[in-house]
Amino acid sequence: MRQIPLVVTGFGHVGRAFVSLLREKREDLERRYGLGFQVLAVARTEGCFYTGGPLDVRQVSRGGYVWTDGNPCWHKGLAVTEIIGRQDPGGGLVECTRSNLETGEPGLSYISAALAAGWHAVAASKGALVVGLPKLKAAAAENGTFLKFSGAAAAALPTLDVGIFSLAGTRIEGIQGILNGTSNFILTRMSEGLAYDEALKEAQDRGIAEADPVHDVGGWDSACKILLITNACLDTAYVLKDVHVTGITGLGPDFIRSAGREGRSVKLLATAAPGRQGGRWSLDVRPSLIEASHPLAHVNGTEKGITFLTDSMGSVTLTGGRSNPRGAAAALLKDLINIFRPPF
Amino acid sequence: MRQIPLVVTGFGHVGRAFVSLLREKREDLERRYGLGFQVLAVARTEGCFYTGGPLDVRQVSRGGYVWTDGNPCWHKGLAVTEIIGRQDPGGGLVECTRSNLETGEPGLSYISAALAAGWHAVAASKGALVVGLPKLKAAAAENGTFLKFSGAAAAALPTLDVGIFSLAGTRIEGIQGILNGTSNFILTRMSEGLAYDEALKEAQDRGIAEADPVHDVGGWDSACKILLITNACLDTAYVLKDVHVTGITGLGPDFIRSAGREGRSVKLLATAAPGRQGGRWSLDVRPSLIEASHPLAHVNGTEKGITFLTDSMGSVTLTGGRSNPRGAAAALLKDLINIFRPPF
Repeated sequence: MRQIPLVVTGFGHVGRAFVSLLREKREDLERRYGLGFQVLAVARTEGCFYTGGPLDVRQVSRGGYVWTDGNPCWHKGLAVTEIIGRQDPGGGLVECTRSNLETGEPGLSYISAALAAGWHAVAASKGALVVGLPKLKAAAAENGTFLKFSGAAAAALPTLDVGIFSLAGTRIEGIQGILNGTSNFILTRMSEGLAYDEALKEAQDRGIAEADPVHDVGGWDSACKILLITNACLDTAYVLKDVHVTGITGLGPDFIRSAGREGRSVKLLATAAPGRQGGRWSLDVRPSLIEASHPLAHVNGTEKGITFLTDSMGSVTLTGGRSNPRGAAAALLKDLINIFRPPF
Repeated sequence: MRQIPLVVTGFGHVGRAFVSLLREKREDLERRYGLGFQVLAVARTEGCFYTGGPLDVRQVSRGGYVWTDGNPCWHKGLAVTEIIGRQDPGGGLVECTRSNLETGEPGLSYISAALAAGWHAVAASKGALVVGLPKLKAAAAENGTFLKFSGAAAAALPTLDVGIFSLAGTRIEGIQGILNGTSNFILTRMSEGLAYDEALKEAQDRGIAEADPVHDVGGWDSACKILLITNACLDTAYVLKDVHVTGITGLGPDFIRSAGREGRSVKLLATAAPGRQGGRWSLDVRPSLIEASHPLAHVNGTEKGITFLTDSMGSVTLTGGRSNPRGAAAALLKDLINIFRPPF
């Protein structure tokens, strides 16, 4: 069995769910794929959890909280790049930090260091990819390593796998997605009669929306995802300011009610549409009316969905995929398996 | 650029669409994937089209028909296995024969010969896979070659890619699919008020159903697909007689009308459900009532769809994908690209 060292950067909801999932799946991964993943370090901004051997989630958290004070595994000031540098090439970085969409940090430095050291990288955080995908892809190619980021592009909904792998050889002629579960939940509740503020409050009460919901309802999360999906599937290098973003903040109930009366629904649609004659693509996020026959019309609640329009396969739509930390963790693990398993 | 010889077995609608698509996509495949596929031979039961160099579709057909009489490229009695044997390892077999579901022939012999000669194989025809998938998989593994068959498992709807690649690491806990476009078209028209015979006749008039529609409306096409998808994604070895098959032949309008009144719809659902305590899976094809909230409820007309239920990613649904020879050709080409392109 192949033993593969992993370093997890960031230990929020997704990082924790990943380490737990790995423990739950250990036997299954050995049996089905011949792979033994070992978490060698968990890195935070101020230091690393590290023992020199495989870490357990219990060595990193206690009572549900990250455990630094008095934890013998905690090394304040130890940089994750030192640990990656100590290892032979061929490990995997699992990037889960809450990264900055303007600087891409700290993920950008972590991923760059991993690729330069001959490590593969999988990412659930978007910042580094939104800021630096073309450079990171070039670095991966130069070092003969892989960079995969299903976890950052709708996670359990396999947008990138389908766009890159399943649609290989087709010409993608358009992409439309409902890529943010929180805003879709709010729109669904509004279509059922709630006002915007009521629907937002319910989403917050149920842990679906954050206390500061602007990233979701302002359309920025969707914008990051359509940007990453477009750049990954079309091999383009658009940047976040190329995306025209209108969120659902304060959307009036009349718009949604009148849509409902016409048998249509309002969705926060993220779209990528080709320019004329091979020109630049238009990237947009905005509340949009869609017909009941549209393949995304029945994507409700916290569900997500994406439709690819192609020349030779027609339109292919994906819906579902769990929108929670476990789903994101499963997407990270899927990417790791597909990097390390034998060809199939 | 990498030059790859191909042999196409069978030259019906799908084989022809494949050769045409390859010509259409030549530059694109070179530019995007660095791949140059060359059709070296087209094989039929009685002989091969073969010149020793790359073949053009015009050397194989004339006026829309297969051209044997007086065609200098046609070699009656030449076996395709001789051509594969003359070549260095590493070419690709593109299996498109109308194969027999009981014997798997002639596809079974073609694929076996290709794999044994160190060639990779992609298939759109089901017979060989329905009859002999476990043996063929073992042969591929032994020879270090690949066998892919998206074209035989819903084609442009990427059922196998998602089940094997995108859901890697999850436990699949159930599969449900609308896998036959013809019967779904008939059921859709019946839900709009037509009687079974009227809907079938319309499907035949529009070229959607064959003159002898039993393969589609009897549920056998769906049965083959759910069998292949289950065996491929779960690494099982079920056979066609393990699938309980009830088609839609002669379905009464009352069933469909009463479903409609309750807001439900009738679909020819192919399902794979796990047995208790790790026992054998149940494979079924039968007309089924589904709720409007089911992710396949709005798959209408000739569309197909599939839902995978998983432990860690929730449910993931795919819908769409063109149901015609061009879609099948695109699925064959996709599999070839993913076999031959550099890892990504």
